[in-house]
Amino acid sequence: MEDLEHYQVSTMHYSRIMIAVDDDDFVSSRRAFDYACTVAKIYNIPLGVAMVLETGDLNIFQSLSPDVLSKRRQEISRDLNSYCDKARDFGVMEVQPFLSEGTPGHEIVEKVVPSFKPDLLVIGSETKPGHRKTIGTQAAYITRYAPCSVIVVRSDAKRQEMLQDLSK
Amino acid sequence: MEDLEHYQVSTMHYSRIMIAVDDDDFVSSRRAFDYACTVAKIYNIPLGVAMVLETGDLNIFQSLSPDVLSKRRQEISRDLNSYCDKARDFGVMEVQPFLSEGTPGHEIVEKVVPSFKPDLLVIGSETKPGHRKTIGTQAAYITRYAPCSVIVVRSDAKRQEMLQDLSK
Repeated sequence: MEDLEHYQVSTMHYSRIMIAVDDDDFVSSRRAFDYACTVAKIYNIPLGVAMVLETGDLNIFQSLSPDVLSKRRQEISRDLNSYCDKARDFGVMEVQPFLSEGTPGHEIVEKVVPSFKPDLLVIGSETKPGHRKTIGTQAAYITRYAPCSVIVVRSDAKRQEMLQDLSK
Repeated sequence: MEDLEHYQVSTMHYSRIMIAVDDDDFVSSRRAFDYACTVAKIYNIPLGVAMVLETGDLNIFQSLSPDVLSKRRQEISRDLNSYCDKARDFGVMEVQPFLSEGTPGHEIVEKVVPSFKPDLLVIGSETKPGHRKTIGTQAAYITRYAPCSVIVVRSDAKRQEMLQDLSK
């Protein structure tokens, strides 16, 4: 294979990183957030922080109530600001928040990423029984369709659990 | 959310990295390989290099011919050694090759990763028309089932092309 023969390894870094935080999955998001902030700080690159208000999560009665939706909007907006502050406190110089509403995978791929244009998107990976629409379980969708590199961050606990399952 | 309130960002690095090289997809694999070697060199951590001989690729006539299979085994083994040498030339201190045969996604998730136990697996992402079984198109499978974090590396060309499609 001639191509391989003449290939030499080059240093490769990312220059613009985005983290999609799952507001309902703090454990999984935390390690992903640590990783995104570490990379953004070390290479001194801009960090986008994205959160999606999952409107599909609200049942019909709730989605008809303006109060419920309004409360959720306030909560998620407060949490997003909190994440951004924590990134700045850690030492990330440029932090930009992104808030969207809808199905997380779709919002991230179709709207948030094309807007911020990161070359690396960081997402958590956990799945929770009976709660299948988190960003975690939409990892496969995002990985397949996002117009950038994607890292799916697994916690050590999840990694050990999966390795044990495989060794059965 | 009390958890978020008390959370502080911590530095997070990987300590054991593996790259799954798609022998048929040099363009996509090259950028992924650059990234894996860069991370392994900077943090001075072990690098596993995995290649899978796709036996499902060979048609029935070919798979019956010991000569064809033997030739493919020689080729892939030579390429694997070549990749490992290039990683060492770049400055990665500890490089370990892994050769497997079968369906790439399955071999990587069930055999290679449980053997090397990386905390980060690096894969390319390209898809080629009419050739759906490369590691690239199996990215979603690996991302979902690999017992570690997974980064799917997209080339700049692929990224631009996908961004353009989304803006249509």
